[in-house]
Amino acid sequence: MATEAQTPARRRRQRGGDDAAPARKVNYRQLTNPFTPQTVFTQDRIEAIHATALRVLSELGLKVLLPEARKLYAQAGCIVDEDSQIVRIGQEVVEAALASAPRQFTLHGGDPSRDLDMALGTLAFQSGAGAPNCSDLLRGRRAGTLRDVEELTKLVQHFDAIQMLSPGVEPQDIPIHLRHYAFTRMQLSVSDKVPFVFSRGTPQALDAFEMIAEFRGLSEVEFRTQPHCYTIINTNSPRQIDIPMAQGLIDFARYGQPSVVTPFCLMGAMAPVTVAGAVTLSHAEALAGITLTQLARPGAPVCYGAFASNVDMKSGAPAFGTPEQVKASLAAGQLARLVGLPWRNAAGCAANTNDAQAAHETEISAWGALMSGASIVIHAAGWIEGGLTVSYEKFITDMEMVQVMAELCAATPCSDAEIGYDALAEVRPGGHFFGCAHTMERYATAFYEPLVADWTNFGTWTERGSLDANDRALGLWQQILADHKAPACATGDRVAALDGFIAKRTGEGGAPPAD
Amino acid sequence: MATEAQTPARRRRQRGGDDAAPARKVNYRQLTNPFTPQTVFTQDRIEAIHATALRVLSELGLKVLLPEARKLYAQAGCIVDEDSQIVRIGQEVVEAALASAPRQFTLHGGDPSRDLDMALGTLAFQSGAGAPNCSDLLRGRRAGTLRDVEELTKLVQHFDAIQMLSPGVEPQDIPIHLRHYAFTRMQLSVSDKVPFVFSRGTPQALDAFEMIAEFRGLSEVEFRTQPHCYTIINTNSPRQIDIPMAQGLIDFARYGQPSVVTPFCLMGAMAPVTVAGAVTLSHAEALAGITLTQLARPGAPVCYGAFASNVDMKSGAPAFGTPEQVKASLAAGQLARLVGLPWRNAAGCAANTNDAQAAHETEISAWGALMSGASIVIHAAGWIEGGLTVSYEKFITDMEMVQVMAELCAATPCSDAEIGYDALAEVRPGGHFFGCAHTMERYATAFYEPLVADWTNFGTWTERGSLDANDRALGLWQQILADHKAPACATGDRVAALDGFIAKRTGEGGAPPAD
Repeated sequence: MATEAQTPARRRRQRGGDDAAPARKVNYRQLTNPFTPQTVFTQDRIEAIHATALRVLSELGLKVLLPEARKLYAQAGCIVDEDSQIVRIGQEVVEAALASAPRQFTLHGGDPSRDLDMALGTLAFQSGAGAPNCSDLLRGRRAGTLRDVEELTKLVQHFDAIQMLSPGVEPQDIPIHLRHYAFTRMQLSVSDKVPFVFSRGTPQALDAFEMIAEFRGLSEVEFRTQPHCYTIINTNSPRQIDIPMAQGLIDFARYGQPSVVTPFCLMGAMAPVTVAGAVTLSHAEALAGITLTQLARPGAPVCYGAFASNVDMKSGAPAFGTPEQVKASLAAGQLARLVGLPWRNAAGCAANTNDAQAAHETEISAWGALMSGASIVIHAAGWIEGGLTVSYEKFITDMEMVQVMAELCAATPCSDAEIGYDALAEVRPGGHFFGCAHTMERYATAFYEPLVADWTNFGTWTERGSLDANDRALGLWQQILADHKAPACATGDRVAALDGFIAKRTGEGGAPPAD
Repeated sequence: MATEAQTPARRRRQRGGDDAAPARKVNYRQLTNPFTPQTVFTQDRIEAIHATALRVLSELGLKVLLPEARKLYAQAGCIVDEDSQIVRIGQEVVEAALASAPRQFTLHGGDPSRDLDMALGTLAFQSGAGAPNCSDLLRGRRAGTLRDVEELTKLVQHFDAIQMLSPGVEPQDIPIHLRHYAFTRMQLSVSDKVPFVFSRGTPQALDAFEMIAEFRGLSEVEFRTQPHCYTIINTNSPRQIDIPMAQGLIDFARYGQPSVVTPFCLMGAMAPVTVAGAVTLSHAEALAGITLTQLARPGAPVCYGAFASNVDMKSGAPAFGTPEQVKASLAAGQLARLVGLPWRNAAGCAANTNDAQAAHETEISAWGALMSGASIVIHAAGWIEGGLTVSYEKFITDMEMVQVMAELCAATPCSDAEIGYDALAEVRPGGHFFGCAHTMERYATAFYEPLVADWTNFGTWTERGSLDANDRALGLWQQILADHKAPACATGDRVAALDGFIAKRTGEGGAPPAD
């Protein structure tokens, strides 16, 4: 194998050249999925699933706990039974909603370079989200705090290949009537990426909208014109939408902000035991949610969503990275393309520590999402224990995967110069390409530079302390946090204005979440 | 989340039913890749690469160290310079070879259920191969012995999702003039899968052919009629074929046994620094090797091969699981489809221990192979340190990935019954599907059962000793070895006959490898 003496970097140094290699630049901020979406079912069976989902909505209906939502459905001609709270949604209502939902919209970040197009074919990653706990090798496993979610948001801010913020861990040290203030302030002050807003009732949502609008210098009218944040709506499978979720669908639509409508369907538990059945239920619930957004405001931005995996039928424990999850993702992608909307899928991992199981489960489910053509892949970094914990070290090791996937989105040059007949002619049989002109011109920027991978040989690796990927990840996230700088948009004045808003609203009693 | 009390297995036990669940049966032995092969270059650029490779062969040529091989090329009209040993191969010679190489052939195992079709679209996995060392948590890292490679072959035999044997580790405790006897006897006595034969000179190859033919009760003529084993030929990139490799291409072709012609091209080292250039070199060398097989015997079975990754340009160390490896795999698949032959690709991993880096690198490169439409994915389980070591624990943890990929090859039912409208109607909003008829009929066989994944919750996992995937893998491989039974075809008489052959040939002095 080649030795250090042979490499171009060494050669350049020997020649007295500048050792500072030209920086390699790849745009990870706006990605287009390079792969042809793959399928698991034939098109006629996808149409059968769609037809069955429409039949579920019109004949069985779903339970909608929020009176305002039932009223919107009823005004559109849906059959509403107020006693049972069951809403039966006719096919024509769903079809009208699908016709008015935009095929494309742009999510705005705190800096224009962070703006994200959302459509079929675009690709964005999110880190592990919604966990009550976090863990790292320094401080162990613990209930999430504001400090933890701030640290995780700083890590996200560092990596361009994660394009959207998400609620990494729940800041349980902040009282629930004030939590949304602290969480929104934290996001805006440490990151210029598209922020996330919880759907926990109208007062909290409107507070967050006001904070974002004020921070970005937008009037309410301006704010409503374009998406500046997003929320995630999980239905209560099977066939139920609770009060905060329904309220979120309505509020976000009215304010022109997108909901990502994602039934979380575990096959064999809250969904049928078959891939086909679980996807049918998921599709019906997503259509019901999307419909509600369009009834609240026709043309409101909205994402289709699907997150289906299976349980272990021996214990009932949720499982991720399974073949069933991949197949459900492929089917969901087919259904998203049938309705034509940008859509969200998810990676997942049920391991209890960042080991080979954890890496495998996240990776195989992320590949499922990638091959399914998902516009957003959530839980792509850091998610363990089926979402109960976000691991700092797993965040880092997963980022290697996310960055490699982002690299795959970049075009690969293949000009005659790249093919390099002259280089092939220059190097003798059995020789090497380290020093040829073709290599010298390109070596500094030719390859992806790994984040956490250690490619030294076994002897060197052992001499240096046999550090595994977790050990190295521990050092990396600490360094990233130490190096964090606030984004340009988070000026002192703007953050002070947020603090003023929070002080005022806190004095007024804050805003408790909806039940 | 669901509790044990709610699951169908528990329900069945409560009803006094038989707890022995019906066995889930999925055929992992013959796989068809379910995905549309993906591309990295446009078709006109693939044709440009092919044209450039033909130009490399006809204008630059390659160095062929074996006189017999140069003679075969010369007889076909190639321009041979005996001083420089450079052979220039005209386009028409390559095209005639591609026309005579079969598009499909069947590799025969020791049992008909192990037979493997080789063609574009079929899929087979091999475990990590060709390593000098092995390691496990029980005995540490060590130079490979016959015992080690026998244990690894027993592990391969256990898993249907690895369809072909490969030389896991080199049995360095056996003298090199006798090693092929011990290795071939070992393979035939512990496995009924397609065996591997080293290309280390004619005497060793013919010894192995004779052992396999005798073991399977075949005359030499019968043996030559069908593939009963295979070899792997690595060219000496760039543009060189050494004596044992050239001899292997000739011998295997004459005996009707397939060579897998695989240039091992590390971008920036033995190959150009660009994906396009490395793939061009690899393609030229593969075509040269394939051509030699067809000159030795037109119609001989042969596989196209490609294994290209990059080096770390700072240190020259080989890297695997990189975006460049995935892109080169995609390009190689396009070239394999251009020439129409079954082809081999590879996973890879440069980690020094079975950590998250190791899992990620193997997984992302295996996905590259899968999406490239490779017929054989070698190094899919156990390979670490860039091929210097096979890890027993990584073999097990990678098998989870391989089995999930094999599951993805199985058709997913999507009848109206699977969609399950009645089940959706049976379960009330907010309820669960654990007990419904649709679930009860299917639960025992609905899902892939994990090999090494632990899906218990954090509390239970901690109580049970916080075992990570490596700890569990250690127990699994030990149990598999303890449970090993010789395959039906390895009768005492047949193994005794092998021993007799080996004693006779050992007495005659064995067969040293070719230089």
